[in-house]
Amino acid sequence: MPQDQFVIGIDFGTESGRAVVARVRNGQEVGAAIVPYPDGVMDQKLPGGPRLEADWALQNPRDYLLVLEEAVPRALKAAAVSGTRVIGLGTDFTASSPMPTLTDGTPLCFVKRFRKNPHAWVKLWKHHAAQPEANRITEIGRARNEEFIHIYGGRYSSEWFFSKLLQILNEAPESYSAIGRFIEAADWIVWQLTGEEKRSACTASYKAMWVKGAGFPCRDFFRALHPQFKNVIQEKVGEQFYPLGSCAGGLVPSWARKMGVPAGTPVSIGNVDAHVSAPAVTVTQPGSMVMIMGTSICHILLGKDKRMVEGMCGTVEDGVVPGLWGYEAGQSAVGDIFAWYFERGVPEAFHREASRLKLAVPAFLEKRAAALAPGQSGLLALDWWNGNRSILVDADLTGALLGLRLSTRPEEVFRALMEATAFGTRQIIEAFESKGIPVNQLVACGGLPQKNKLLMQIYADVTGREIKLARHPLTCPALGAAMHGAVAAGRARGGYNSIFEAAERMAGVQRLVYRPRPQNHEIYTKLFREYQELHDYFGRGANDVMKRLKGIQREIADAANGTQKAVGRTR
Amino acid sequence: MPQDQFVIGIDFGTESGRAVVARVRNGQEVGAAIVPYPDGVMDQKLPGGPRLEADWALQNPRDYLLVLEEAVPRALKAAAVSGTRVIGLGTDFTASSPMPTLTDGTPLCFVKRFRKNPHAWVKLWKHHAAQPEANRITEIGRARNEEFIHIYGGRYSSEWFFSKLLQILNEAPESYSAIGRFIEAADWIVWQLTGEEKRSACTASYKAMWVKGAGFPCRDFFRALHPQFKNVIQEKVGEQFYPLGSCAGGLVPSWARKMGVPAGTPVSIGNVDAHVSAPAVTVTQPGSMVMIMGTSICHILLGKDKRMVEGMCGTVEDGVVPGLWGYEAGQSAVGDIFAWYFERGVPEAFHREASRLKLAVPAFLEKRAAALAPGQSGLLALDWWNGNRSILVDADLTGALLGLRLSTRPEEVFRALMEATAFGTRQIIEAFESKGIPVNQLVACGGLPQKNKLLMQIYADVTGREIKLARHPLTCPALGAAMHGAVAAGRARGGYNSIFEAAERMAGVQRLVYRPRPQNHEIYTKLFREYQELHDYFGRGANDVMKRLKGIQREIADAANGTQKAVGRTR
Repeated sequence: MPQDQFVIGIDFGTESGRAVVARVRNGQEVGAAIVPYPDGVMDQKLPGGPRLEADWALQNPRDYLLVLEEAVPRALKAAAVSGTRVIGLGTDFTASSPMPTLTDGTPLCFVKRFRKNPHAWVKLWKHHAAQPEANRITEIGRARNEEFIHIYGGRYSSEWFFSKLLQILNEAPESYSAIGRFIEAADWIVWQLTGEEKRSACTASYKAMWVKGAGFPCRDFFRALHPQFKNVIQEKVGEQFYPLGSCAGGLVPSWARKMGVPAGTPVSIGNVDAHVSAPAVTVTQPGSMVMIMGTSICHILLGKDKRMVEGMCGTVEDGVVPGLWGYEAGQSAVGDIFAWYFERGVPEAFHREASRLKLAVPAFLEKRAAALAPGQSGLLALDWWNGNRSILVDADLTGALLGLRLSTRPEEVFRALMEATAFGTRQIIEAFESKGIPVNQLVACGGLPQKNKLLMQIYADVTGREIKLARHPLTCPALGAAMHGAVAAGRARGGYNSIFEAAERMAGVQRLVYRPRPQNHEIYTKLFREYQELHDYFGRGANDVMKRLKGIQREIADAANGTQKAVGRTR
Repeated sequence: MPQDQFVIGIDFGTESGRAVVARVRNGQEVGAAIVPYPDGVMDQKLPGGPRLEADWALQNPRDYLLVLEEAVPRALKAAAVSGTRVIGLGTDFTASSPMPTLTDGTPLCFVKRFRKNPHAWVKLWKHHAAQPEANRITEIGRARNEEFIHIYGGRYSSEWFFSKLLQILNEAPESYSAIGRFIEAADWIVWQLTGEEKRSACTASYKAMWVKGAGFPCRDFFRALHPQFKNVIQEKVGEQFYPLGSCAGGLVPSWARKMGVPAGTPVSIGNVDAHVSAPAVTVTQPGSMVMIMGTSICHILLGKDKRMVEGMCGTVEDGVVPGLWGYEAGQSAVGDIFAWYFERGVPEAFHREASRLKLAVPAFLEKRAAALAPGQSGLLALDWWNGNRSILVDADLTGALLGLRLSTRPEEVFRALMEATAFGTRQIIEAFESKGIPVNQLVACGGLPQKNKLLMQIYADVTGREIKLARHPLTCPALGAAMHGAVAAGRARGGYNSIFEAAERMAGVQRLVYRPRPQNHEIYTKLFREYQELHDYFGRGANDVMKRLKGIQREIADAANGTQKAVGRTR
């Protein structure tokens, strides 16, 4: 019997990178290692440098390289697997997290004279300071009826590729001129590993307006954004994109040495953390919606046809697996809302009682909330603590809590918050189904499903659908990346010829299934109708009170700040 | 120079009674004593007896007698004043807090065979278990277009006299037959002190449908409520009522001995705690609104004419002072909302930080909230944690909080709650002014104004009106009662001939004035318009979500309780 072969998946997250070694034959994860980014998310100031304005979020590409150097050898060691038995590598990244580089791929922030310039660093997905640019792109895109406006559910996000690049041009034109390439970190890391700049069709499609078979919007569109933006594609981006699972090249000798994996090992085209999770949880066909549940939720769904669904983040052919349309939707705060409540709303007495029972506060609250029946608290919330991504695509909406009484207890509030996020998911499911895209079951991965069983039951009860869990909810993206590494290797080298083959052998879910309870589902359907009425009242213009409150707040902040100014925005 | 003379005011509150000795010449409070009721508020069970159903709240009249016996001598002692120098006594009470007695005034609960019957005790103002009776009274009253329906702003409350008496007839007909008199505790205590059953026109008018010059609704109305209710007035109530400040009689020897005050000392007709506070803070003319601010707020305002204002608790000629119309309005939770937040919403870190700064948590939160500007938090609340008394008169409304974000901090929530209660007061002021009843300034008494300076500034800023404070915010009712004692004595005995005279000499306010800041008022007016839009949307039927949530909650509670049954309601 021949020795087993292995693939390595490397998942670049928001705070850390993780490498997983998986057995090609059955997907078993035999070793893993995690490396926190030393510079983490830079949202206050640059290392040793200037302060950043509000809404900025940068990263240091040096941290990504550290993950390659440290996490891969440690994962191999943990697996007790020799690097010589590794037949392929795959990566996935947060997106859109683009960076400016010289033409040879050197990050601009590695160049001494740019080090103190915030625009020289990676603009992390949650960098939100390019909102004026996003608004401008949406406005021009709509006026010209560009295809991307439809694909992105009507609006181009401040988080995305061209908003961030246009921000550089607007705020730091001299840096813009110095940019040889503007590239997703997902593609840059593959460039480092293989020595070849081969960009992923996935990120280009979901974040950068590229459409399979049609390419980018024409020069006139970019010129309308800014005269100097006219040739941006030719000058900084390029027009060649590669499908997921294809081989970007072989591992260069320098990285092979550092990582302890043979030079020439096939490396797959860069992937996105959410998208790559779908095949890792066996979702390669329409009907199952993947929920990556953490601080936020990202929903991935496959469909046979191109359908335009309200407020989706993207609708992309081959966007997740070849031959199908990949739909992406999302909720901008989920675990973040619970964390906010744990930190800012749980009274002292609960901390004491939790500690008496030797429980963490979240676990204690979950226990209390689990004793409540749906509808028992009389509370209802709108889960917009960080705006609404899908289906309203409106960052200026805010959270609401109704039904408060003198008798209202903390566990009731916590349960109402969980329920509200489940209603948000049901709203997304109903948007898909209203366009004829079925959602028959849910498959969950990410940090939340492990932590909070009650939450999963609530999601099952609210949506009326069964929920399955990833085998290892936290390492889904890394496993998905590893699977793509196996596809990059191909069957000839011991891997697989397609992601479908790879998923059949390597992917899996837990036996545990959360099943909807009919009587709970019935009550939740009543509550969901109330949620929808408030959702539409506050979210679709009948009463824009949330925006007016934010407007008043901004006026006051502006008046208070006066002429105060931080580095970054110079116009 | 002749020796100063004194009057005693006795204020019967919800948890305790308080006696104050005041100098007739200038109203100076020279001694006071407080006596907690041993049985307090009975809302769980009777002493040594049966459990009570939800929404019940009873008191033991024995506790009122204890206040006479203990608080009066102690207050005299504290004042170092001989009882012989006391020329008059006045009392005030919570209302409507009626009780059943035999024809000689013996409380039914003092009779052995009724001791274990919840219906034999005082039904405290916040006994809310007579809601079905209140609904029935409102329904019949509306159908017959009875005068009281207009006087009470469209609805008869479950807290009031006839709701509570009808509950006895409905639930315990045998006890009903045994009742000789059904009487406000305010009138019962005067009966004890003087030996004469002389009832107050004030409580009769605000709580029991009696109208000066017109009397009660006719027999047909009462018969429509219940056949046995037909002669309720003649059988249990009587038709003679006495104006505020008139003398009910002289102190009987037995109580004179126990209290240490001469027999024959004039005792004034019983008063109500909120109403009696108005003259104590110098308000004896139209234009100044008195706010008794504690767990809830009661608003008292005087007017020259009879005007029907939406959602008022009552509109009564001579209801507060002779010759003017007394308007009463209210907010059913104010301090209670803050207490709820302190107990159930303030995170552990705030407790720690408060303790580090040696501050109580409320004071720490106030300090933090005071550093915020109006509108800075982006939050807006509806202050309906205990329903809405004025102007919507709807106990089924609930609280709401909007504008929540991941950045929302506890002091912002606290400030939004304070602001919401101020918006509630402004709503009431605007209702008065829309009917031509001016509200030029506010005068505050009660427990809150002392505790929370920021709250008072917010009220000034929100309402755009100056706020003055009672000289001694906590003893306003007792001082007002003492002033009425001086009026009962009359000028011939060293007192005053009218409450106007008494107020001129005895009443007063602090020098401190909270003045509205124009720029804050401007922002708050913007926020108040938003409050009003939500107030009308949720409160006037556009979206009855709060009621539907309560309805779902009730269904679930009913299903859970099943056949479970507690003492009290037997139908």
